[in-house]
Amino acid sequence: MTILVKDATIVTMNRDKPLIKHGYAFVKDGQFEQVTEGDPSAEWLSKAERVISAKGKWMLPGLVNTHGHTGMALLRGHSDDLPLHRWLEEKMWPFEAKQDQKAVKAGRALALVEMIQSGTTTFLEMYHLFMDDFAEMIEKVGMRATLMRSMIGLCSKEEQETKLKEAVSFAKTWHKQANGRIQTMLAPHAPYTCPPPFISRIVEEAKQLDLPVHMHLAETKKEVDDHRQQYGFHPLEHLEQINVLSAVPWLFAHGVHMPKREIERLSLYDTAISYNPKSNLKLGSGIAPIHDMHEKGITIGFGTDSVASNNTLDLFEEMRLGNLVQKGINQDSTLMPAALTLEFATINGAKALRFADIGEINIGQQADFILLDADKAHLQPDIHVQSHLVYAAKGSDVTDVYVQGKPLMEQSTLLTLDEEKIRFEAKEQYQRICKLT
Amino acid sequence: MTILVKDATIVTMNRDKPLIKHGYAFVKDGQFEQVTEGDPSAEWLSKAERVISAKGKWMLPGLVNTHGHTGMALLRGHSDDLPLHRWLEEKMWPFEAKQDQKAVKAGRALALVEMIQSGTTTFLEMYHLFMDDFAEMIEKVGMRATLMRSMIGLCSKEEQETKLKEAVSFAKTWHKQANGRIQTMLAPHAPYTCPPPFISRIVEEAKQLDLPVHMHLAETKKEVDDHRQQYGFHPLEHLEQINVLSAVPWLFAHGVHMPKREIERLSLYDTAISYNPKSNLKLGSGIAPIHDMHEKGITIGFGTDSVASNNTLDLFEEMRLGNLVQKGINQDSTLMPAALTLEFATINGAKALRFADIGEINIGQQADFILLDADKAHLQPDIHVQSHLVYAAKGSDVTDVYVQGKPLMEQSTLLTLDEEKIRFEAKEQYQRICKLT
Repeated sequence: MTILVKDATIVTMNRDKPLIKHGYAFVKDGQFEQVTEGDPSAEWLSKAERVISAKGKWMLPGLVNTHGHTGMALLRGHSDDLPLHRWLEEKMWPFEAKQDQKAVKAGRALALVEMIQSGTTTFLEMYHLFMDDFAEMIEKVGMRATLMRSMIGLCSKEEQETKLKEAVSFAKTWHKQANGRIQTMLAPHAPYTCPPPFISRIVEEAKQLDLPVHMHLAETKKEVDDHRQQYGFHPLEHLEQINVLSAVPWLFAHGVHMPKREIERLSLYDTAISYNPKSNLKLGSGIAPIHDMHEKGITIGFGTDSVASNNTLDLFEEMRLGNLVQKGINQDSTLMPAALTLEFATINGAKALRFADIGEINIGQQADFILLDADKAHLQPDIHVQSHLVYAAKGSDVTDVYVQGKPLMEQSTLLTLDEEKIRFEAKEQYQRICKLT
Repeated sequence: MTILVKDATIVTMNRDKPLIKHGYAFVKDGQFEQVTEGDPSAEWLSKAERVISAKGKWMLPGLVNTHGHTGMALLRGHSDDLPLHRWLEEKMWPFEAKQDQKAVKAGRALALVEMIQSGTTTFLEMYHLFMDDFAEMIEKVGMRATLMRSMIGLCSKEEQETKLKEAVSFAKTWHKQANGRIQTMLAPHAPYTCPPPFISRIVEEAKQLDLPVHMHLAETKKEVDDHRQQYGFHPLEHLEQINVLSAVPWLFAHGVHMPKREIERLSLYDTAISYNPKSNLKLGSGIAPIHDMHEKGITIGFGTDSVASNNTLDLFEEMRLGNLVQKGINQDSTLMPAALTLEFATINGAKALRFADIGEINIGQQADFILLDADKAHLQPDIHVQSHLVYAAKGSDVTDVYVQGKPLMEQSTLLTLDEEKIRFEAKEQYQRICKLT
């Protein structure tokens, strides 16, 4: 289908022309064929099978969420305000151990609803359960995702190999599927849950498959201290020591406890960081030195982590909070200006997830875009578009969501998911799992 | 009018019974006559002139914003990401100097719209321009507010006296007016803008009028360092030295740079702190030691400051962010649990503003309450009410707002303000002022 979006204020994320105050965009075969200022000619209008007026709205690339676990979506509010180990051992793990296919599926549908409603078109899923189910769901729903079967290596060699086989098979099956909307990675869970030989094995496989590797890294101080005690190295230094950093492209989640030396080393390899400010604050992990990492040229994208620790999947919140805490802890109001914050949430996030042609509204890019209703009191005076997107907009201002030129939400109505049913089932499944002993 | 709210999940903020999962509330003469579990009897139903079903909604006290300057509401996004002094000198002050009555009024109407829409029923206004206008506007609109004519003392003694006369006259005229919905304070702007004798003069007047005093305090490190250099004291210690701390009740805004000794001293007097996390982070001022102050028994309320530095007036954002940064910087996930965070935003905020009978949904309390639509994906499973209010809800989930039993917003429609006109005028006035030379 060809689509013409006219009368649009377009945040292009193109550095040469970041903002088009009044323009139009033409979409053909899921890509932008034209993005420019002014009004469309009669020719453009006649070529469009569908014309959308974006008057009073702001158009921007779909947001990119670079780290999460939708498989935990039923756990929103299940537990807060506990010490990390009690939260995990008494609340998270017992619930997760009881989750079956139906529960995980219900939670995931809920997560997709929340993401689409708040303008996320692309996300990363790192989880160990029912990944094929999920890939099929995403294919049907129309979102874009980087998926992986996460592996914890605290088990026998045999079990490790079984997990790896599953992960590789999943990665092969789904990479570049769903019209290119699904990509895959391999994912050792974390240095503290995966012995070094297992990490090396996984990286070896990833290299053969030409896939990047995703892993949690340096999320808590305790984790780093324990690692130093056990192995004598900071986890990142350890990865360098076992020669896996240069073998494949990496995407690390968190990177909260990264001394200067580690940031320096990170910048020497093909690495990116998923910045998860809300989850890191809520779990008391701390604040990642994102300003320093960005200064060293490391690619930064925003991630929400799961709703168990966030407790939302709204990247507008992540942008705002992630920006503000950098200014605050460095006592410098000039850090992470609005334009850069938007880059993290769009083009840089896309880079981190290794999608080549999303994150901008530009000729030749994939037509993943969202519209926000700017006729809101909290967005007035409606002149400072980029500022308002970062410092004032809410996920609930998003009205329309397109991926590859196909609408997933129009005028706040979801088109490929049954929201009411999904809300009902999420609650029902949560209550069912809670009752299981 | 008598109102019966039934089928309600009520967050009472009453410590004995903080949550009623299914109950009803009866309002008479602007106060709660009944708040209890279960379904109302035929008698209650027949006594009610109006019956509201709160099915699928959460009912809680209207939120209290303890520090702000609505007179700056047109400045949302006017400038961000600049060093503080350039932001003030090059952007804020030149715009404010050009503002006339029409512009300030347009901005203030916009601020009221935003506050009501996001569930704020009570707020503090500290500003120097057109305060009588504003009090009249608030009286008409139906909100509740603590108002004061702010005074900067960097001027001649005569000018100081003129300002004080204006402030006193305003305070006398409006205290306990609008059916008790308006109260007043006196407000020296800050220790760095008010010479000590002027502060003493103001406190003297406040004591005579039996009014509290509101003032900015220790917002930036520079301000504290400069004060020490000029006077040899931390600003708070200086207030203690000149014997004004014990003379009247105080509400201080910010308190970001408060060493242990100052927190200790603060706790000895009748003082409260307005915690403004977003503004403090955005301006690079830092993060107030709220956890330590709370531990010392100091009353804490949330404040947004103005949209020039926030850039919203949504207390749900303030609750979430203010909670998360305390956990984050202290690397302790147990700090500021959800229930306490809600207290800051309701009963403690009311205490800080010296309103005696708001902040709870309880028999005998003023009927200032809000309803949120809980049928949202980001609030599922909808069981963890207090958690979701702090960690997941958005201001945009608020659907109904009542003050003293009178509706200001019903089913997301404002009743006492013309939103569309106000949005239009805010933009128009902003553009007009920008063009003035």
